[in-house]
Amino acid sequence: MEYISGIIEKKHIDYTDFANNVDKVVSIHGIIHRVREMTGFNFVILRTKREEVQCIYSPDFSNFEWDENYFEQQAVVVTGKVVADETREGRYELQIHDVEVVSSPAEEMPITINKKQLNVEMDTNLTLRPISLRNPKERAIFKIQEGIARGFKEFLLKENFTEIRTPKIVFAGAEGGANVFKLDYFGKEVCLTQSPQFYKQTMVGVFERVFEVGPVFRAEHHNTSRHLNEYISMDFEMGFIDSFHDIMNMETAALKYIMNMLETEYAIEIEILKAKLPKIDTIPVIKFSDAKELIQTKYKKVITDFMDFEPEEEQLLCKYAEKEFGSEFIFVTHYPSAKRPFYAMDDANEPDTTLSFDLLFRGVEITTGGQRVHDYAAQVKKMEERGMNVEEFDSYLMAHKYGLPPHGGLGLGLERLVTKLLGFPNIRSGSLFPRDLTRVTP
Amino acid sequence: MEYISGIIEKKHIDYTDFANNVDKVVSIHGIIHRVREMTGFNFVILRTKREEVQCIYSPDFSNFEWDENYFEQQAVVVTGKVVADETREGRYELQIHDVEVVSSPAEEMPITINKKQLNVEMDTNLTLRPISLRNPKERAIFKIQEGIARGFKEFLLKENFTEIRTPKIVFAGAEGGANVFKLDYFGKEVCLTQSPQFYKQTMVGVFERVFEVGPVFRAEHHNTSRHLNEYISMDFEMGFIDSFHDIMNMETAALKYIMNMLETEYAIEIEILKAKLPKIDTIPVIKFSDAKELIQTKYKKVITDFMDFEPEEEQLLCKYAEKEFGSEFIFVTHYPSAKRPFYAMDDANEPDTTLSFDLLFRGVEITTGGQRVHDYAAQVKKMEERGMNVEEFDSYLMAHKYGLPPHGGLGLGLERLVTKLLGFPNIRSGSLFPRDLTRVTP
Repeated sequence: MEYISGIIEKKHIDYTDFANNVDKVVSIHGIIHRVREMTGFNFVILRTKREEVQCIYSPDFSNFEWDENYFEQQAVVVTGKVVADETREGRYELQIHDVEVVSSPAEEMPITINKKQLNVEMDTNLTLRPISLRNPKERAIFKIQEGIARGFKEFLLKENFTEIRTPKIVFAGAEGGANVFKLDYFGKEVCLTQSPQFYKQTMVGVFERVFEVGPVFRAEHHNTSRHLNEYISMDFEMGFIDSFHDIMNMETAALKYIMNMLETEYAIEIEILKAKLPKIDTIPVIKFSDAKELIQTKYKKVITDFMDFEPEEEQLLCKYAEKEFGSEFIFVTHYPSAKRPFYAMDDANEPDTTLSFDLLFRGVEITTGGQRVHDYAAQVKKMEERGMNVEEFDSYLMAHKYGLPPHGGLGLGLERLVTKLLGFPNIRSGSLFPRDLTRVTP
Repeated sequence: MEYISGIIEKKHIDYTDFANNVDKVVSIHGIIHRVREMTGFNFVILRTKREEVQCIYSPDFSNFEWDENYFEQQAVVVTGKVVADETREGRYELQIHDVEVVSSPAEEMPITINKKQLNVEMDTNLTLRPISLRNPKERAIFKIQEGIARGFKEFLLKENFTEIRTPKIVFAGAEGGANVFKLDYFGKEVCLTQSPQFYKQTMVGVFERVFEVGPVFRAEHHNTSRHLNEYISMDFEMGFIDSFHDIMNMETAALKYIMNMLETEYAIEIEILKAKLPKIDTIPVIKFSDAKELIQTKYKKVITDFMDFEPEEEQLLCKYAEKEFGSEFIFVTHYPSAKRPFYAMDDANEPDTTLSFDLLFRGVEITTGGQRVHDYAAQVKKMEERGMNVEEFDSYLMAHKYGLPPHGGLGLGLERLVTKLLGFPNIRSGSLFPRDLTRVTP
């Protein structure tokens, strides 16, 4: 009988181990990212899990004979002596003693991925995604994406939130409207979730504080640089709040935690991407109506939409926050009730507005949140006033009927945050395999 | 101008703070789980985020007057003096000085949720999910679920895996077959993902080691106690493996890490559920053909299916592993090639079998994994032999064409693991809001 022990043997070392192995002969594996043949010596740049590692061949280093057939995208194990890189402070390189080829590609790459910048059109980038992502700058985006979601989770667990996993096949769209994907489910017409809204409110009655990071789906019928048809929503919902300020504070603290994590644990990728992380001290807050007035008076813009912001207006508000308060973020509160969903709580003092907010960052909205209606009678009344079929929402309203504390929460779009953080103009840059009006492959 | 600082004020303490506040007057919030009125004193059991907290009213404790209308599912803030619970070692209770009602339910609960066991049929439990989950034992299942996924992620991050988020709307089912949900995507017929298989293999070419925890969808046309139509798959995929033993070792190490995390950080729920965690030392490994023989010779069972196990056979194998090797887990390897997907690598020594495995635990398969074909020509050949339309998979095969290291991985069903771990006979117990043939609400 054979047994599996769970002991993980590390057959090759990582680049991070180089510092402790100077002058020793070690093995490292990776993908050949670039080969440069010079006079008398050659460079092999290995692409490893997170870093590029420079290996140098010279007949002076060993008896190993250079095989002219080493080429890009081969998987190899390189053995050699670790030495300090004399041209780059604090970096190490490998003097090649041996190269073992583990696997080879069938064809040469149709695009150049081993330059700093991937110089192809967005469309080519996305069509060739499996290989364009091999460009160090492209893949670094998704290490940062990992870090953001990881920071979000770690922070909320620390704050005694429970992570939940709610269904994506649902009976009704949380946001309503036409942009819902419909699905045949054993003869029944159902939807793909637009938001975990109903479930996270329900779960406030169970765990008080919950969060989820998961996919949501919006059948938006237009291609823009700010929308995806499938994206990752980072959601939380918390009970026993005094006001929606509790939610804005929780988000601000989460963002600080995330930025700190990126700075410390994702320095490699921050450097590759030359990203400028925002400094978050305090975030200014402005009411929706005041913001509209400001845009009109200060920026001389004629307001045509009194219910929502146009993209240009969000940019102006961010410009204002940056200039006046040195903040790249700004909270806008008290959005008109007519533009917010039925579960948003109205402000008792200004019943046309809601106790809700958006968070804008570098010119675009990255979060929508607010306090929710928790009282059953009040929620039913609001739905009836909107002409909704209350019975359809029976299973959602069960939580209200049998008691919910005052609560609220938010949704934070992961791809929007990562692209704005890294300064990309198109949200597709922040999605591994984006889904848009025309694209479901790869 | 108003500002948000991100400073989180803790207005009420948690039960975990009680130990440091003995004899002090504190406030705690929660949901009234049970009220017991006795002669001369009353009990209020509060349901808080993770624990039940006992509060006692007596006119001796303060001038506070008991309001006879306190009832179950009200959200309250209770203020009082922390004292040691004399009947339960190491526990604390609160002598009530004040009760503030924050919100009240509209109706009385249709089921009893405040007994230890929720004594309702599965169907009632699921129909009333928003409130049945308020039962401490029911909700504890999902804290354990959180812990399993958290342990999986933490362990893999430590092993230098990158967390990825791949699309759920896809162009082709990874597992093939009829059980794919179809979807109209702007006039195109597409699928809901059955597995992140194609994407995680693709991402081996980018990050070498990747994992994902996310929903997958299977249009199974039968209701069983072991299947869900939407479930959470915990997947990883790793490059530069020597054999599929590397994958089994990684899984075994991950399971050890997870069990350790549950024992230390989820002791509250382990206790509530009286769960018996498996001890994992080494896990025995048996070949599929040997397992079939064993079942026939040792357990005198007539084999009718030579390509796969029947549920009873999986139970027998687990019984065998437990009895002979003291292990609640057993790996079965070398499944017949004909029953494994096209991307599974065949064993060069026994070409009818694959370098693949299942992991069985307490009578049921919880993981399928193995080494994959990484060579482009070999993969195309295998697909052609199966009569597949290779062109359809162009975007998947791009990774192979332009080079992939030897690699493999696995998928671990979260709901199966959690229900088996906690000893529930029906997988629905391990899903917050299960989706089956007849159920899409709540």
